[in-house]
Amino acid sequence: MRVYELRNKTGLAALSLTERADPRPGPDQVLVKMTAAALNYRDSLVVNGFYPDMPLPLVPLSDGVGRVIAVGENVHRIKVGDRVSGVFDQNWLNGAPPCKNLSLGGDMDGVLAEYVVLDQNGVVHVPEHLTDEEAATLPCAAVTAWNALMAQDQLKPGSTVLVQGTGGVSLFALQFARMAGARVIVTSSSDEKLDLARSMGAAEVINYTRTPEWDQQVLGLTDGKGVDSVIEIGGGNTVPRSINAVRRGGCIHLVGLATGMTAEVFIPSMLVKQIRLQGIYVGSRSMFEQMNEAIDHHKMKPVIDRVFPFEEAIESFRYLAKGSHTGKICIRF
Amino acid sequence: MRVYELRNKTGLAALSLTERADPRPGPDQVLVKMTAAALNYRDSLVVNGFYPDMPLPLVPLSDGVGRVIAVGENVHRIKVGDRVSGVFDQNWLNGAPPCKNLSLGGDMDGVLAEYVVLDQNGVVHVPEHLTDEEAATLPCAAVTAWNALMAQDQLKPGSTVLVQGTGGVSLFALQFARMAGARVIVTSSSDEKLDLARSMGAAEVINYTRTPEWDQQVLGLTDGKGVDSVIEIGGGNTVPRSINAVRRGGCIHLVGLATGMTAEVFIPSMLVKQIRLQGIYVGSRSMFEQMNEAIDHHKMKPVIDRVFPFEEAIESFRYLAKGSHTGKICIRF
Amino acid sequence: MRVYELRNKTGLAALSLTERADPRPGPDQVLVKMTAAALNYRDSLVVNGFYPDMPLPLVPLSDGVGRVIAVGENVHRIKVGDRVSGVFDQNWLNGAPPCKNLSLGGDMDGVLAEYVVLDQNGVVHVPEHLTDEEAATLPCAAVTAWNALMAQDQLKPGSTVLVQGTGGVSLFALQFARMAGARVIVTSSSDEKLDLARSMGAAEVINYTRTPEWDQQVLGLTDGKGVDSVIEIGGGNTVPRSINAVRRGGCIHLVGLATGMTAEVFIPSMLVKQIRLQGIYVGSRSMFEQMNEAIDHHKMKPVIDRVFPFEEAIESFRYLAKGSHTGKICIRF
Amino acid sequence: MRVYELRNKTGLAALSLTERADPRPGPDQVLVKMTAAALNYRDSLVVNGFYPDMPLPLVPLSDGVGRVIAVGENVHRIKVGDRVSGVFDQNWLNGAPPCKNLSLGGDMDGVLAEYVVLDQNGVVHVPEHLTDEEAATLPCAAVTAWNALMAQDQLKPGSTVLVQGTGGVSLFALQFARMAGARVIVTSSSDEKLDLARSMGAAEVINYTRTPEWDQQVLGLTDGKGVDSVIEIGGGNTVPRSINAVRRGGCIHLVGLATGMTAEVFIPSMLVKQIRLQGIYVGSRSMFEQMNEAIDHHKMKPVIDRVFPFEEAIESFRYLAKGSHTGKICIRF
Repeated sequence: MRVYELRNKTGLAALSLTERADPRPGPDQVLVKMTAAALNYRDSLVVNGFYPDMPLPLVPLSDGVGRVIAVGENVHRIKVGDRVSGVFDQNWLNGAPPCKNLSLGGDMDGVLAEYVVLDQNGVVHVPEHLTDEEAATLPCAAVTAWNALMAQDQLKPGSTVLVQGTGGVSLFALQFARMAGARVIVTSSSDEKLDLARSMGAAEVINYTRTPEWDQQVLGLTDGKGVDSVIEIGGGNTVPRSINAVRRGGCIHLVGLATGMTAEVFIPSMLVKQIRLQGIYVGSRSMFEQMNEAIDHHKMKPVIDRVFPFEEAIESFRYLAKGSHTGKICIRF
Repeated sequence: MRVYELRNKTGLAALSLTERADPRPGPDQVLVKMTAAALNYRDSLVVNGFYPDMPLPLVPLSDGVGRVIAVGENVHRIKVGDRVSGVFDQNWLNGAPPCKNLSLGGDMDGVLAEYVVLDQNGVVHVPEHLTDEEAATLPCAAVTAWNALMAQDQLKPGSTVLVQGTGGVSLFALQFARMAGARVIVTSSSDEKLDLARSMGAAEVINYTRTPEWDQQVLGLTDGKGVDSVIEIGGGNTVPRSINAVRRGGCIHLVGLATGMTAEVFIPSMLVKQIRLQGIYVGSRSMFEQMNEAIDHHKMKPVIDRVFPFEEAIESFRYLAKGSHTGKICIRF
Repeated sequence: MRVYELRNKTGLAALSLTERADPRPGPDQVLVKMTAAALNYRDSLVVNGFYPDMPLPLVPLSDGVGRVIAVGENVHRIKVGDRVSGVFDQNWLNGAPPCKNLSLGGDMDGVLAEYVVLDQNGVVHVPEHLTDEEAATLPCAAVTAWNALMAQDQLKPGSTVLVQGTGGVSLFALQFARMAGARVIVTSSSDEKLDLARSMGAAEVINYTRTPEWDQQVLGLTDGKGVDSVIEIGGGNTVPRSINAVRRGGCIHLVGLATGMTAEVFIPSMLVKQIRLQGIYVGSRSMFEQMNEAIDHHKMKPVIDRVFPFEEAIESFRYLAKGSHTGKICIRF
Repeated sequence: MRVYELRNKTGLAALSLTERADPRPGPDQVLVKMTAAALNYRDSLVVNGFYPDMPLPLVPLSDGVGRVIAVGENVHRIKVGDRVSGVFDQNWLNGAPPCKNLSLGGDMDGVLAEYVVLDQNGVVHVPEHLTDEEAATLPCAAVTAWNALMAQDQLKPGSTVLVQGTGGVSLFALQFARMAGARVIVTSSSDEKLDLARSMGAAEVINYTRTPEWDQQVLGLTDGKGVDSVIEIGGGNTVPRSINAVRRGGCIHLVGLATGMTAEVFIPSMLVKQIRLQGIYVGSRSMFEQMNEAIDHHKMKPVIDRVFPFEEAIESFRYLAKGSHTGKICIRF
């Protein structure tokens, strides 16, 4: 079969299309013929070698979908013909995060391969109304947004959520927050992207290039109280403003680090406002399954920016690096 | 001022329109000129003397809305001109329920009076888009539904909720569950009422006269798993079927006792399914305020069955007793 | 190997010691040489055929401990020489209960056998300071008490807990509640057993034969408020008094049904007091592991009533049926 | 009466003993004759003008105890003769923190006065077994520790807690964590203080001057997993090591800022470890009351370093500033 792999070094130049023997499932495993995959910002960190303790050679990408074409003798959860996605962290099925994570396309081979073998417990069925490309976008970005808003937080109708940007996690967060009846405020540097956000149900939008003090604007939009939750994508440079923009007792979900790896946290504000700063790293299989029920019930559709053929996967990484996309970048096998 | 009161005995015949001196607010109180009120099943229990330890004379009704026309010298939360409702339990502002409740129109005088004096902490502002009659329906039935689904439970998009009937609490529960993105199944004995439920967003409806084994139907509609939550209105006769219809680890919110005061609970099912049977008794001021934000954001409208003038309040109790209404019965002052 | 099994019918007379082929572990399994086992009330239900949908032939007993003497090729959590117990529900590792349980000695063969094969995920290491007999007592009764008090409830120092009786779950509940700094009230019909409870840290004890209105006594001991939590062992006949004895907003953990399978629940009390009646059915592997850390840190010792040799296992069931024991009945291999 | 006040400027030199008219309680207020008070690090921030938006003149100190000698006509929660303490945040009685706090000795006059008038809802009864000086130590430091460990966290027996230092909050945290059956690790620069911590039940102690990489030591003491919770007192300089020392999914309770007002938070660690950084600012009246029940049940005694007479209150601030104390600094009236 054909796979993309980082053989013995990292960097996009080192990512190459190569041949490997077709895999066969062990007694508790399923063999999946991949039909689509999707990229995350994290995948570019992996390809460029910024992921800690990654093994080489490595097949990148955590997100994809395919058909099960064979199953091991002990497999009972899944059957041949099922359409499934792999769970991002193969160790995290339920409950609290495990001591050690085992993420696809990071700690172990990922899904940028024609065939993938996974433990029967490490896959989930995906909603039927989605195309393969759409279904492929869920394992990392969507589960991250779901975990933040629905597992760590308990969003209620009328809650207010601030979503930074319009990347993958952000648009999923907007969609899930709307589904839960929350009021969503979206920030972006692009009016065009803000128009999209508004068309997807954002109650308020802020162009942060025109309004660099967006935290003040958020306070103004919430009677001076601040929002209940922030989906914090910017990281380093945006955390201080998020601390201003969140209400007393509110939660900032640390999801990204687009503007910097280190955040300066002003402790007196954290104390007096009793803020919770919560690191989020995708989520469990159980969260993935709950999310799928919600997506299914609401016939929700992920936003796809562009689809590349399998043969142009390296192009897709270059496109991701440009950062001009809105929604997900996919690969069709 | 004119008030309805049970002077020295109970029973609808004993409820009479009478005169009392106009009340004046103490230093921490507000004086409210009532404009509308609403009835609950509980009010008929009160009027008929089935409410424990009620003082006499007693002005009935917990639910109403009015304008603040005077405030005491220490009042800062509320100002003259505000439109407010009283909190059902004047002792329960926030957090866990207090040791002792103090409910309007039960443990103390209620709102079926032209003027009402309440502690400034015991009132909330009501959503602006609602008429007085609509706003009057919120304090008991709506807060009960909110407490069950949003405080005791943490409904998520895609959760499944079984709502029994189409009375006050039931329709609010349907509306809130929909707002939160849940999938709602409604039972009723009337196809007409089920049509209403469907038009309000119920995903599935069951006529329990045609399908007396509605618990089996609920299992069928949920892949055999059962629902996440039940709004249990029937009480005595319906709890056993609700135990069948709820999923493992699910919750039955005990809200009503329309079919009987005592429920036979089969313990082995409770154990093996790890069911939670949760008694609900309205909710706190804080829940009321959160609910109002949700109602406001969604511009939600309560369902009103009929409005009686103040002078026909006794008629309104008779109409309530017939049980043919759908949604709330109101009184206009 | 020798096993006890119910071959083609139930009843203690049908439980017989027989020979089976020595089992061998599959690739993900471990082979355990059992050294001790323990009995629960539930095991007599199983043996007498009162357990729903049990397969025959069946090896009874969920609780035991042994040494791992062989492991399959994929096993990484466990190694040869480890001392382990099986998890009661082999399907419940973490998080919420699974759709379908798979309990040892009920839904599948249990541990009253010289050798047992289990999935590597279905066993836990047991605290080192315990003897084999002591360790054997944990999987069902101790995890049940832990789940009730530490997972469903969140006991705090100063919380009050009412524990009914001095059977297996009850004494574990007393020990865990004490560990968590709670104040424990124990009921029993025997002064001798109450003396034991007091020596184990019960703050108050009530002999319910001398004080049949023990619910009133509990109210007296809690300034009229009632306790935060009840460990409900009696079931049918005791639930109504537990409803009286628990505080507003408190929780009754349904654990047993010693006095009857059906409880009459008075709904108005459930409503006004906002009581939670929570069915408990043992717990997950993750709860078992957390509990073991607590037992280890506190060097806690289970209370053992009597130990029977493997050859007298049938006697041990008779002794259990008499109901005169305090603490656990064990079997030594 | 005599009070200490900052009249029109801040700084310890501006704190002076002066006379004010004896206060009288309003209809909902109680008049308390103070008998003891206690200092917190926060009080030195107030006196030195580092507390935001503080009004002048201001009587400092949040913590104290006294006897009620008169009550207003509406007062029912409290009676003359009761021994009470003021709640730190007079606005926070229950549930989530209010939009705006109103802290004693910061946002309003505090308790360094012979007589204090407070709202009846703003005081709590204190445990009987405590001396006045001991009882005076509870409102700020003890409630802070309780909120962190028992409200934000849900400490269980066997949980591991890292407590930084041996100041007021730290020793209370050690005591409460022990009460809840947790395993506590304490850090300090002084072997003498660590001996005290050990004598109070710390399972492990680390001298961070001898072991500057105390985070590594904490990992070593927890099988490489890290602790469940950290009581973070140091702030700026210690947060990065706390991030290393806490387990995946664990919680760092931001309580102090002894070593710096700004913490550099490394986002990748926050993400991958899914850490919660939780700002804590004392707690509600309800937490105070729950804590008092626990202190009462366990007959717990606060650690007092030194008691100054009322006339030497300024000396007590100087002593606090030296930072050599262990436990609380009190003032006797």
